[in-house]
Amino acid sequence: MIKLNCDLGESYGAWKMGTDEQIMPYIDMANIACGFHASDPFIMDKTVKLAVQNNVTIGAHPGYPDLLGFGRRDMSFNADEIRQLVLYQVGALQAICEANGTKIGYVKPHGALYNTMMKSKSQLTAIMQAVASLKDPVPLMILANADAEENKQLAEKHSVSLLFEAFADRRYADDGNLTSRALEGSVLENENDIQDQIKSLITDKQAISISGNTLSVHADTLCVHGDNVQALESVKSIRKFIDANFTKS
Amino acid sequence: MIKLNCDLGESYGAWKMGTDEQIMPYIDMANIACGFHASDPFIMDKTVKLAVQNNVTIGAHPGYPDLLGFGRRDMSFNADEIRQLVLYQVGALQAICEANGTKIGYVKPHGALYNTMMKSKSQLTAIMQAVASLKDPVPLMILANADAEENKQLAEKHSVSLLFEAFADRRYADDGNLTSRALEGSVLENENDIQDQIKSLITDKQAISISGNTLSVHADTLCVHGDNVQALESVKSIRKFIDANFTKS
Amino acid sequence: MIKLNCDLGESYGAWKMGTDEQIMPYIDMANIACGFHASDPFIMDKTVKLAVQNNVTIGAHPGYPDLLGFGRRDMSFNADEIRQLVLYQVGALQAICEANGTKIGYVKPHGALYNTMMKSKSQLTAIMQAVASLKDPVPLMILANADAEENKQLAEKHSVSLLFEAFADRRYADDGNLTSRALEGSVLENENDIQDQIKSLITDKQAISISGNTLSVHADTLCVHGDNVQALESVKSIRKFIDANFTKS
Amino acid sequence: MIKLNCDLGESYGAWKMGTDEQIMPYIDMANIACGFHASDPFIMDKTVKLAVQNNVTIGAHPGYPDLLGFGRRDMSFNADEIRQLVLYQVGALQAICEANGTKIGYVKPHGALYNTMMKSKSQLTAIMQAVASLKDPVPLMILANADAEENKQLAEKHSVSLLFEAFADRRYADDGNLTSRALEGSVLENENDIQDQIKSLITDKQAISISGNTLSVHADTLCVHGDNVQALESVKSIRKFIDANFTKS
Repeated sequence: MIKLNCDLGESYGAWKMGTDEQIMPYIDMANIACGFHASDPFIMDKTVKLAVQNNVTIGAHPGYPDLLGFGRRDMSFNADEIRQLVLYQVGALQAICEANGTKIGYVKPHGALYNTMMKSKSQLTAIMQAVASLKDPVPLMILANADAEENKQLAEKHSVSLLFEAFADRRYADDGNLTSRALEGSVLENENDIQDQIKSLITDKQAISISGNTLSVHADTLCVHGDNVQALESVKSIRKFIDANFTKS
Repeated sequence: MIKLNCDLGESYGAWKMGTDEQIMPYIDMANIACGFHASDPFIMDKTVKLAVQNNVTIGAHPGYPDLLGFGRRDMSFNADEIRQLVLYQVGALQAICEANGTKIGYVKPHGALYNTMMKSKSQLTAIMQAVASLKDPVPLMILANADAEENKQLAEKHSVSLLFEAFADRRYADDGNLTSRALEGSVLENENDIQDQIKSLITDKQAISISGNTLSVHADTLCVHGDNVQALESVKSIRKFIDANFTKS
Repeated sequence: MIKLNCDLGESYGAWKMGTDEQIMPYIDMANIACGFHASDPFIMDKTVKLAVQNNVTIGAHPGYPDLLGFGRRDMSFNADEIRQLVLYQVGALQAICEANGTKIGYVKPHGALYNTMMKSKSQLTAIMQAVASLKDPVPLMILANADAEENKQLAEKHSVSLLFEAFADRRYADDGNLTSRALEGSVLENENDIQDQIKSLITDKQAISISGNTLSVHADTLCVHGDNVQALESVKSIRKFIDANFTKS
Repeated sequence: MIKLNCDLGESYGAWKMGTDEQIMPYIDMANIACGFHASDPFIMDKTVKLAVQNNVTIGAHPGYPDLLGFGRRDMSFNADEIRQLVLYQVGALQAICEANGTKIGYVKPHGALYNTMMKSKSQLTAIMQAVASLKDPVPLMILANADAEENKQLAEKHSVSLLFEAFADRRYADDGNLTSRALEGSVLENENDIQDQIKSLITDKQAISISGNTLSVHADTLCVHGDNVQALESVKSIRKFIDANFTKS
């Protein structure tokens, strides 16, 4: 069955963000921030414990070293620097996982690092190299866009396995990327629209683009968000819809 | 034979510190900074590569999150926070080691974190717990002071092995701790004085304190420094003296 | 009439803290964080604009350089460093005030910096020197504890004027300092108790200590908090009580 | 007479950079880092004192909030954020200047912030707005490239005065910008070539571009560097050449 993945552990010091405790029971995979764009060692430890309690798979969620910009700001790093930034953060979370008797199950880059990875094959390659060089390699989660086949080949070349993610509540562009949030209609807000997209993604491995075209989208997981109470309710609704309508595999 | 350990990889971004390339051939163990008091992922990768090339054992050298104060400033953290700070940094270096086909051989805290560890059994315990909880536990390096026996028992209780370090160029207080640098005569500057202390440490497992008492000091390793060209020359001289006078074991 | 002062502008980057928009209309003086323990240039600009709109006096609220610890963690800085830390932050806020056609009206240190200032005359002196050396000197806000007379003399010596603050909802120790929050009964939660303390502070320039003694407390301002909705309601209630019962001067 | 301006005060915490003490006597204007790309309140205070002792005009040298990248890394900030970043840093240095009985004489952005200012009129405008909104407005220093006339008009519109800088040791492109350091011949290393360019800049208000064209370059100041001993010697030589050959005005 398709998994739900969600960004979590994005508080920092005295600042709280997200609805971690409430949303954890409804997701399968937690993308846990690693201290560069959000979080700190104390919050990472707390979030890992919360994931373990809820039997949720832990993903490392590395980002740019930019607390001020929450890792959403473009910054110029070369490929080798990207590789090193990812290694550092994944390793930090891995040690905290080990201390809690668990381990990282996958890596999913955050924000501007995720975007540069999906735009640039050299940056994607750098992240694959980081993941592949770990003693216990794990899958890399990327967007299931039109480059999926090409990205698979690149991953095979670097001995990395991939997890593809799709979005339940975002309208797709014709190239399989997400339409800009700035664009009207980019975010699906109607529950029926979201359920239609989920059904299409799971049953037909397809999504309908914003211009009405049918896209092939093979997704292992759906990305959901728990930023606030409204988002939390949407996730609960998605969880319920999936559990009710699709056979567990 | 007694090993030489040295703090390394303490540059940060565009700022250089230390004589890493020059001193690496003369030491056995490199205490590599982990990004909190000094260093960054790029410098860590470079320093690990340098250690591998020189066949030097890599130690994680975690510190307080205080770049501005170089980890030398006292900061109040509780024991659980200390444990999490250490885990994070050790894990980060471990992943960079793995990507370079090597691994961490030990952990030695830095600066104010080292000092609090030697003063407070609860902070020492927290660091032991961090080290013991790693998937591949490694020894913890601490000062060979008068508490050595007590610290050994604490380490055994937490299933941690210890490495004891002594100082070739620092005068000891009667309790086996180092005299304050502020105190005249605290730093040995005469080559003969340094060689006498090394000889005494290796042959007799003893040091003469600043008040003239004989202390029992069982050291596995001597801490040396490579901050500048003068320090580098002193390390070369110590290396030569040890190699010439003591049988390799 | 006694003024209400409140910590504000303590968000950071993507992280929100406090109820700034809601509480600003009910206070007289806004202690605005300056980027070291909280806030950033963007939030400072926004908060200054909000204060101007509400005709609230702006205070610089400098703290330790410790975002991770929100400036609440003890850190060792010498007196000259304290002076420089304060100058830097006050100047930063001052320029943002100037760009908004206003200026800083006073300085009130934050958290652990405030605590060290109240405990150590050398740290207090350093902060007085910082404030006195500004081109447009402003008053320094400190706690109206038993040292008030001594602190006034120190301030005169350094040509600094003082603002004394008291707390409406905290129980006093016999020395005029606040009792530790860890102590039961330290925080007044009953509205009548708070109003009694305010009345006593305004009318009699006195407070009753936790052991029942009568303390002399000459306060220019009361410190209130707007961390959450409950705190906000308490501030509204205090505002109403003061406006209804005490003549404006 | 044409002034020499130089980046200074770019150490950070325990890390040293530059030859500040040695170069200060040979320059007229010190671009002092403000804590975002380099420096800290302690180093700023020390550098301001050094400038005062040497009767050198102090310029605020604000940069991106990127210690790791020394402010040389491109980062995306919108115009209003640029304005706020500059205000914060200029204000911080201004207060430290006031405490030392001096004041800021001009503002010159650093690294990637300087580059974005010279490329984007909206970013340049934002910086002009920051400078113009100070209580004591000061000139903004920018590159004397082919846009000089247009930039002057923009500055007049925002009531800002400009200082134009040229480079003694860099080869110009045909548009009056500097050729990339990656390009061979971009940096003038021969003393005669440097003196020829200085003479041409001072006497004829011209420079010869890398393709041999004659460019009009009206410069108020020459940018020099003091990163290391070799650079320091070059500055001494430039100082001597200017003092010997051009009348003081």
